[in-house]
Amino acid sequence: MKVRPSVAAMQPYVPGELRPGAVKLASNENPFGPSPLAVETLRRDASSVHLYPDQHAHRLREKLARIYSVDPDQILVGNGSDELMAMLAGTYLQHGGTTVTAANTFSTYEFATLLYGGHIRTVPLLDGRFDLEATLGAVDDATDIVFICNPNNPTGTYVTHGELESFLSRVPDRVLVVVDEAYAEFATAADFPRSVELLHQFGHLVVLRTFSKIYGLAGLRVGYALGPAGVIRDVGRVKLPFNVSLLAQAAAASALDDNEFLARAVRNNNEGREYLESEMKRLGLRCYPSQANFICMDTGLDASALFRRIMELGVTIRPLTSFGLPASIRVTIGTPEQNRLFVKCLETALAEQRSGG
Amino acid sequence: MKVRPSVAAMQPYVPGELRPGAVKLASNENPFGPSPLAVETLRRDASSVHLYPDQHAHRLREKLARIYSVDPDQILVGNGSDELMAMLAGTYLQHGGTTVTAANTFSTYEFATLLYGGHIRTVPLLDGRFDLEATLGAVDDATDIVFICNPNNPTGTYVTHGELESFLSRVPDRVLVVVDEAYAEFATAADFPRSVELLHQFGHLVVLRTFSKIYGLAGLRVGYALGPAGVIRDVGRVKLPFNVSLLAQAAAASALDDNEFLARAVRNNNEGREYLESEMKRLGLRCYPSQANFICMDTGLDASALFRRIMELGVTIRPLTSFGLPASIRVTIGTPEQNRLFVKCLETALAEQRSGG
Repeated sequence: MKVRPSVAAMQPYVPGELRPGAVKLASNENPFGPSPLAVETLRRDASSVHLYPDQHAHRLREKLARIYSVDPDQILVGNGSDELMAMLAGTYLQHGGTTVTAANTFSTYEFATLLYGGHIRTVPLLDGRFDLEATLGAVDDATDIVFICNPNNPTGTYVTHGELESFLSRVPDRVLVVVDEAYAEFATAADFPRSVELLHQFGHLVVLRTFSKIYGLAGLRVGYALGPAGVIRDVGRVKLPFNVSLLAQAAAASALDDNEFLARAVRNNNEGREYLESEMKRLGLRCYPSQANFICMDTGLDASALFRRIMELGVTIRPLTSFGLPASIRVTIGTPEQNRLFVKCLETALAEQRSGG
Repeated sequence: MKVRPSVAAMQPYVPGELRPGAVKLASNENPFGPSPLAVETLRRDASSVHLYPDQHAHRLREKLARIYSVDPDQILVGNGSDELMAMLAGTYLQHGGTTVTAANTFSTYEFATLLYGGHIRTVPLLDGRFDLEATLGAVDDATDIVFICNPNNPTGTYVTHGELESFLSRVPDRVLVVVDEAYAEFATAADFPRSVELLHQFGHLVVLRTFSKIYGLAGLRVGYALGPAGVIRDVGRVKLPFNVSLLAQAAAASALDDNEFLARAVRNNNEGREYLESEMKRLGLRCYPSQANFICMDTGLDASALFRRIMELGVTIRPLTSFGLPASIRVTIGTPEQNRLFVKCLETALAEQRSGG
């Protein structure tokens, strides 16, 4: 059997490498575990899993709609927001069409593009940030979708509300702009986009969010898209009927109420971010200012070797080789104890590598 | 934004319609609930869902490999076997290529075909069975995939080992043959295909199985494909990294050990099948001989109206209008009590409809 030509070009996803016993700061998971309210729900609903899930995730969508003051028809729930990326390409990417994104960003935008036989155009980051001016310049008649990761994975940088608004007003409205906000709940900058407000202004914008990060539900796979009702209806056509599990829907709905847990996660993240940024300065490492639950630093060394050594010392992080940044590493902001352990391991590894160890 | 042309032709999936309080015999779920071992695992692992799932479902695949005496590389796990159908089309269906299946069967074969810009050719059932001779006749140079549902949903009929083997030996080996065995665990016929044996003979065969039916895990979304290692590797390229949730992987692995639960489900199904088939005879309804956990009957009446009345009386079943069989209904084999209730409701509804009520 012949593999579709575009599929033959697809590269396997490179996940964080793990080591039993090591502290995992590799995948931007919540260091406090899952939302306790979600765990309670999982235990309660475990005995109902012989039933098919609600195909339309009514309860979760209605809850999200109230939170965002949008209509439930403006929300689509996915088996992780990565499934929604693929569904968006499956709906709007024409055969042989093009998507545009940054050169160093989440790999699933490329996956989604190749899966549906398209081509991807990448634009270099500017100071570690999405360069929206250059991105606009890369949009042409063949462009069907632009993917913007904000805050950007793996650099943690962001584009502002004003920049995004200006970009949206200049991108032709036959091009879908997908803003992936997997880490938005950690952003504290005053000018971080109020993207749901922008949905009222622009008919070619879709915002993606996830329960994998701040809600601590990465293992359950649940994310959602906010967009114009017409877009959501179109994308719903390519949705497998039962894409989101019964437990994922129920747990996500419960996690939305877990204000105490969310506040604690944000507070811990703010403190950890400040601590890690100041420690990186002390160690002479340049790191991008982060609005996410991770820090990206340019080590000037071979990131893979550094990663291996830090893993031996007891912490797994992410070398950014697969993101096209072979001298950079990304570390999840953990608990204060985990952060201190990481700094200690990094310091040891740096000293060894710099002395040619 | 313009929707891809093939997507514009996609019809929304028609799920079983439900009524609060009614007994649900509409979706071929397990009447005994989920495997108790699986439920135990769910409760135990609920507190780990902040972690990403194992991208490769190692533990589950190894367990399945031991059961089937195949290599773990011959197994791919999906977010339900329906996701695997889409992935198979995403891998092998060429742009504008064709798939072949039966006219009255599971709708996701068509979904997968249209999703990847292909065309579907359907072959009429013969006495409610997949007509493999006519299916072979429908395979031509444009055919990339044949989908066979065995036992067939919604008729419950099956093709035999000899028929399938002969078919596979005559289908050109550039065409992938996908045998969807979602209900195979309920089959008791001596000549039901030993499909895993056929994997040793044919390089163009993939067998799909699910945890949604006999294991009672429909709400968790987990199915798997068995096939040649090369095919499994190719299909793995189009897999989203974290497609199967952490809980689904763990619960499925536990359910595989739940021999007592499985034996009880098979025993109940055999008895219920016999009971329902004899009751249908008594009521003068023609039903196809079933090898699955449901019975399909031709009522000679408007199935939708009959369905509505039976639902009012307290049981939801499936009218087969969306399957192209507007006079037929499908009922899941339930507990003895549920089966009796269904027969009672059916008898009442039939009497009313036949008297023009």
